Amino acid sequence: MATIHDVAKRANVSVATVSRYLNQNGYVSKKSKEAIERAIQELNFVPNHVARTLSTKKSNLIGLIIPDIENPFFPELARAVEDTAYRYGYTVILCNSDEDPNKEKHYLKVLTQEYVAGIIITSTDEKISGEINIPIVALDRVPKTELPTVTTNNKLGAEMAGRFMLGCGAKELLILKGPKQLVSSEERLEGFLKALQGKNIKIHIVESPYELHDAENITFEFLEKHPSIDGIFGSSDVSAIGALKACEKLGRKVPEEIQIIGFDGIQLGNYTTPSLTTVAQKIYQLGEMAAELLIQQIEGKTIEQKHIAIHPELIVRNSTRKEFIQ
Amino acid sequence: MATIHDVAKRANVSVATVSRYLNQNGYVSKKSKEAIERAIQELNFVPNHVARTLSTKKSNLIGLIIPDIENPFFPELARAVEDTAYRYGYTVILCNSDEDPNKEKHYLKVLTQEYVAGIIITSTDEKISGEINIPIVALDRVPKTELPTVTTNNKLGAEMAGRFMLGCGAKELLILKGPKQLVSSEERLEGFLKALQGKNIKIHIVESPYELHDAENITFEFLEKHPSIDGIFGSSDVSAIGALKACEKLGRKVPEEIQIIGFDGIQLGNYTTPSLTTVAQKIYQLGEMAAELLIQQIEGKTIEQKHIAIHPELIVRNSTRKEFIQ
Repeated sequence: MATIHDVAKRANVSVATVSRYLNQNGYVSKKSKEAIERAIQELNFVPNHVARTLSTKKSNLIGLIIPDIENPFFPELARAVEDTAYRYGYTVILCNSDEDPNKEKHYLKVLTQEYVAGIIITSTDEKISGEINIPIVALDRVPKTELPTVTTNNKLGAEMAGRFMLGCGAKELLILKGPKQLVSSEERLEGFLKALQGKNIKIHIVESPYELHDAENITFEFLEKHPSIDGIFGSSDVSAIGALKACEKLGRKVPEEIQIIGFDGIQLGNYTTPSLTTVAQKIYQLGEMAAELLIQQIEGKTIEQKHIAIHPELIVRNSTRKEFIQ
Repeated sequence: MATIHDVAKRANVSVATVSRYLNQNGYVSKKSKEAIERAIQELNFVPNHVARTLSTKKSNLIGLIIPDIENPFFPELARAVEDTAYRYGYTVILCNSDEDPNKEKHYLKVLTQEYVAGIIITSTDEKISGEINIPIVALDRVPKTELPTVTTNNKLGAEMAGRFMLGCGAKELLILKGPKQLVSSEERLEGFLKALQGKNIKIHIVESPYELHDAENITFEFLEKHPSIDGIFGSSDVSAIGALKACEKLGRKVPEEIQIIGFDGIQLGNYTTPSLTTVAQKIYQLGEMAAELLIQQIEGKTIEQKHIAIHPELIVRNSTRKEFIQ
């Protein structure tokens, strides 16, 4: 069944625009209106109005704990969880753990105590601490503990990035790996390295937080020391966008002198210059499936699949070269 | 007294980096470490550890309702509210109203019912609906109803942008005004027009949501019809960044052929190419003061100032020309 997201994608507008159109609330340009109407027909989309009867009962509240509200990946993910929950008549309360295990533990305590019927968490702590006595789903980051999970096949995605980077002819690579406490960042490193196995490529690995500012500073320092680097893999799009800015400040042309690939597929990758080649997670689908998996538990339905891994797709934009070396 | 934000600013790193440094949790590059330590000394910053004793009592929960989690301005604002609340031993629960008055009303009902001790709201509804029986502060957007408010002097800021645009020699301007239901967007239009009064400038005004995608589409359509436009004022940074992309797609050079000024001062404006000239709201200070104003009410302290308007500052980057016409 077509979702609001499918309509947005087909109409080449944002989900927010479609929801403004559907709720007749706020401005939608004539061109967008027409595109949305076309998409709704083509997909024969039927807006779901369960949400109209939203309740304020505790039993309709879902807690969503994300690690960094300033990384656009998480707002986009949260937006998808909210849309879906709303469609099913649930309300989402957001908590930002700020990649701090203590804050995360605190939020888990606050929410489980008395506030929500279930929790979706992107944990900064692979052991998710504190005893949880209500339905829960781990989103994006798979914890060591045994919980229902919805995530991207990170290893596969990073391997795709590695193979593509090779095809583009890079010879000396900088890998901006993510925080070491994250399983997903280790998986992305592993996948990328797998693609380079046995190839005659020089590799530098440095850890960078998923953050524009730090990624920029770290890349700047590193490129100054290693001017022969001609390719960068950012383990997140914000890392890659930070790296892009560092290249600009050093007067290194992207993609002519240095090629850059990110990971995540945030909307922002379209708005940098050059636009960012990236391994796109299906962000909306991730949030949607996590919400559905949680709601199934809350409503005591049987769960067909407890662990969902979604395949990412490589989106080729302008931060990598067009001509391939086979 | 110096805050974590002052330290971040002085050290030229993000607030998140400083908090990672202080909590010794997560990666901080050597260069950043040194910069942070220097800044802490120079500002003689004393980290506040009230937060260590965070409680999960209802009386320590604050609700924060924002209108659009996907507009980076609001995550940055939320981050500031959280930092401050945390410093005072409070926990923040976030709600994303999605610019939908019905969702906003619903969240107000949910939160006031039983969950939080006070609410900070950036309302999408100038009349803030529903009876609120707990302390509340209106943040960023000043509602018609009589509430304590923390906001930016929008009219003044937009007037600064207008004067600067004139100084840069633009002759035909496109104003991407914000959603008409927002007082702030009307104030920004008013302020910008005030600066142009009596000047021989051609002006086009079109409404655009505060959103990359729509702003890009709207600007693209408009520039095709009016190729002689040589200046654009985005009533928000995301509008301006969308406009920047539209110019790129149309092959119009920024700032040589078209100059662009935004409004907000989000971190992202540093990461576009060219980087964005903008009227920067003091985002962190806005969130900080709103949290303090709310906590004063929650704790029954007397409030010296019920309405706070913070002066913005013009940040000149590369989307406007350097040589001024006097």
